[in-house]
Amino acid sequence: MTELAEIGVTGLAVMGRNLARNFARHGHRVAIHNRTYAKTQSLIDDHGDDGTFIPSESMADFVASLEKPRRVLIMVKAGAGTDAVIEELIPLLEEGDIVIDAGNAHFPDTIRRENYLKEKGLHFVGTGVSGGEEGALNGPSIMPGGSRESYESLGPLLENISAKVDDTPCCTYVGPDGAGHFVKMVHNGIEYADMQLIAEAYDLIRQGTGKSAAEIADIFRSWNEGDLESFLIEITAEVLAHTDAETGQALVDVILDQAEQKGTGRWTVQNALDLGVPITGIAEATFARALSGGVPQREAARGVLPAHTADWAIDDDDTFVEDVRQALYASKVVAYSQGFDQIAAASAEFGWDIDRGAMARIWRGGCIIRARFLNRITEAYERTPDLALLIADPYFTDAISAALPAWRRVVVAAAEHGIPTPAFSSSLAYYDGVRADRLPAALIQGQRDFFGAHTYRRVDKPGTFHTEWSLDRSETQISGGDAQTLPPEPAEKATDRPS
Amino acid sequence: MTELAEIGVTGLAVMGRNLARNFARHGHRVAIHNRTYAKTQSLIDDHGDDGTFIPSESMADFVASLEKPRRVLIMVKAGAGTDAVIEELIPLLEEGDIVIDAGNAHFPDTIRRENYLKEKGLHFVGTGVSGGEEGALNGPSIMPGGSRESYESLGPLLENISAKVDDTPCCTYVGPDGAGHFVKMVHNGIEYADMQLIAEAYDLIRQGTGKSAAEIADIFRSWNEGDLESFLIEITAEVLAHTDAETGQALVDVILDQAEQKGTGRWTVQNALDLGVPITGIAEATFARALSGGVPQREAARGVLPAHTADWAIDDDDTFVEDVRQALYASKVVAYSQGFDQIAAASAEFGWDIDRGAMARIWRGGCIIRARFLNRITEAYERTPDLALLIADPYFTDAISAALPAWRRVVVAAAEHGIPTPAFSSSLAYYDGVRADRLPAALIQGQRDFFGAHTYRRVDKPGTFHTEWSLDRSETQISGGDAQTLPPEPAEKATDRPS
Repeated sequence: MTELAEIGVTGLAVMGRNLARNFARHGHRVAIHNRTYAKTQSLIDDHGDDGTFIPSESMADFVASLEKPRRVLIMVKAGAGTDAVIEELIPLLEEGDIVIDAGNAHFPDTIRRENYLKEKGLHFVGTGVSGGEEGALNGPSIMPGGSRESYESLGPLLENISAKVDDTPCCTYVGPDGAGHFVKMVHNGIEYADMQLIAEAYDLIRQGTGKSAAEIADIFRSWNEGDLESFLIEITAEVLAHTDAETGQALVDVILDQAEQKGTGRWTVQNALDLGVPITGIAEATFARALSGGVPQREAARGVLPAHTADWAIDDDDTFVEDVRQALYASKVVAYSQGFDQIAAASAEFGWDIDRGAMARIWRGGCIIRARFLNRITEAYERTPDLALLIADPYFTDAISAALPAWRRVVVAAAEHGIPTPAFSSSLAYYDGVRADRLPAALIQGQRDFFGAHTYRRVDKPGTFHTEWSLDRSETQISGGDAQTLPPEPAEKATDRPS
Repeated sequence: MTELAEIGVTGLAVMGRNLARNFARHGHRVAIHNRTYAKTQSLIDDHGDDGTFIPSESMADFVASLEKPRRVLIMVKAGAGTDAVIEELIPLLEEGDIVIDAGNAHFPDTIRRENYLKEKGLHFVGTGVSGGEEGALNGPSIMPGGSRESYESLGPLLENISAKVDDTPCCTYVGPDGAGHFVKMVHNGIEYADMQLIAEAYDLIRQGTGKSAAEIADIFRSWNEGDLESFLIEITAEVLAHTDAETGQALVDVILDQAEQKGTGRWTVQNALDLGVPITGIAEATFARALSGGVPQREAARGVLPAHTADWAIDDDDTFVEDVRQALYASKVVAYSQGFDQIAAASAEFGWDIDRGAMARIWRGGCIIRARFLNRITEAYERTPDLALLIADPYFTDAISAALPAWRRVVVAAAEHGIPTPAFSSSLAYYDGVRADRLPAALIQGQRDFFGAHTYRRVDKPGTFHTEWSLDRSETQISGGDAQTLPPEPAEKATDRPS
């Protein structure tokens, strides 16, 4: 009789196939299954010598080929497909078995599924997996949620197949139910910001200095030797250096300039709005993609909207390029700081107790945003586990302080010369906003009280107040302070007021 | 026997009470009802001489006091309360009766409720009402959705109580099911942008010139004589001019600078992300409020994050103030252009056929964003009903063109001097983005193809393409062109790839 498998993978499209191969290459016996058997067979045919695969045609045989507690990893298209596979699995599984969803699920779905399977005595692990097909095969960054108990059984396998940096696996327990998929979502949101910032840096240098794509590739290659060292900077150099065989032009000049997206950036911003966390870098990056794809709007504007910019003569290309590098670094730190704020807010909201330093650690390898400077983030959260603002950690404050004059110069140059840098500008506006002693939000509160009696607070005493704008403009205390004088239903009064 | 009422209002908190009084003052017999009778009685006691009120203690008596088809306006706290009142009404109503939700419902709820009541033979009108309590009493802007048939019966009453501009009611039929509440939501989103832009203008002038709040009130008062004439500019002057009785300081300096929100800005941005419409002005305004309320982050940053700005010496205050005025106008036009884009996208998505020019027309009076320049928007959509981009209408192109140099100078000054102007900067970045011949989105597509095989399109031929980045870097056509050469499952392949 064959030995039972340690883990099973169902769904053998490219990601599932590569994860199964990765498990096999690490010496794990892997049960494999796919809706149509042809893919299972082709995995055996093409890569059977990666290790021990135990193929099954039916889901029942697949589950029967697994040791207990069973570990079943689902890698299918996120959505209804995941639910269908889960329903098919439930009658075949036993209490204590572990169902793993490694697809790109939206974390509220993961919370729902975890609750549902918990009622049936099953563990459900929603896990983020980043690194694309290449990562899945050779070591992704893995962000598993679910119960700690399930991680004890499953974690060692996931850590085995994950990327390693300094011998440390890029996989750790994230937190209960939806925490893993949530952190993966924010990872992707940060990835959007990172890519947009790189695109703006490229555009500034291209338009400011007139350098070719190939020359700018060299610049990115050199940046990859310093603080900016990261996978995205590395592949930017590769993309910019590549010549289109058909036209002989730089490929980047042949690619249609309409960026697409698959939804995780959008989810990240939508969630941040629910949580009330300003993640302006990710939002601007997401909207910049939408703008680029807004063909009717761009057609209407082309040749119609004037630029009114002076000719742009850069005095010293090298100085400008260095300014852009520093602006990129500072903006990037802000985008990460905002993303980690969002993780903290969600962790508090959902009771996940996520260790932000550990998240930075498992993002150092395998995933799309892998970067040298994530070590600095981990160190910052180790210094101050409840750090309220990443950029207020001394290391990052110093780094931004050093980059700040260049950052301001670059945002100024972009505005003067009509180069759209929504993410650079927005990150600087965030920086200047969060450090401001006093914001004009006070005026907004005054306006809201004027037209909607929404009340305001004061700097000099507790409570909420309302000025009788349409009467004698006297001030009434609405809540707080001496409770006896309160009107009976301020909440109800407020909530039915359209604004 | 008493004559039956033409319309009934249930829910007599301040908004419902004022709408009921408004109907009565316009000669309509109004049935009134509230969960607790005390409020009904107090309306009769305090305002019985406004017109003919027919009070009822029970919902059954209330419904029985209405002529047919019955028109029942619900004004309760949005959410479960609305559903509860609807359930209470259903058994009391007859086919063809009209239920009106005038609360701040989220438009997907309105779509759901309209479907539900349609099954029962009832009309459901979700209507936006803007203007706060004062507007409800003296003439709000009203944005009713639902069936055209219901508008024939209900519309004349709503038009009667609405604000009038040039003898035209600020009320018109918006479109089916959720269209009315959707348009009200976007109205509120634009209101967020408008308020943030005004706050940035105030902050720039305050910090740039050192003028007092009272002096800046005079500036806003003068602005209200020109293109910027609007309710929000008018009340800004009022708020800035007001002195706190207790401290003798300007009230705006005593108000805590943490802006609050009730959710419609958030909904607007979340929906725009779903639709893929870049509404960066509204997004930055919404996040600016969130930032202002981020106390732990602001505490961590205060005195820690450096400014690195030069001393700011404005040469000529008047010139600078005029620059700010022009920047405010241009940014405001962009925010409106983005909001109208969102209405167009939703109208297409949901089959609402919304007349954008008519929306601008009914916003000219009654509502919070009422403004002189809305006439110009109506005219633009009258010239070109399917206008793809509001700022590409000749009137607005000329207006922005005139303001553009000043707008650039103001964004530059803000970045140089560390004044956070997220909405000014973001609107300029949008302007420069939408008019760009070529965006660096092409690089983003190249990166996505590199790490996720997400494919790209080319400028020189149709189809989608992939470069074999990890192999020989040859290019494969994935779809389009010669269909015979396509791989079988590109969609499935793409969707299971984490990015």
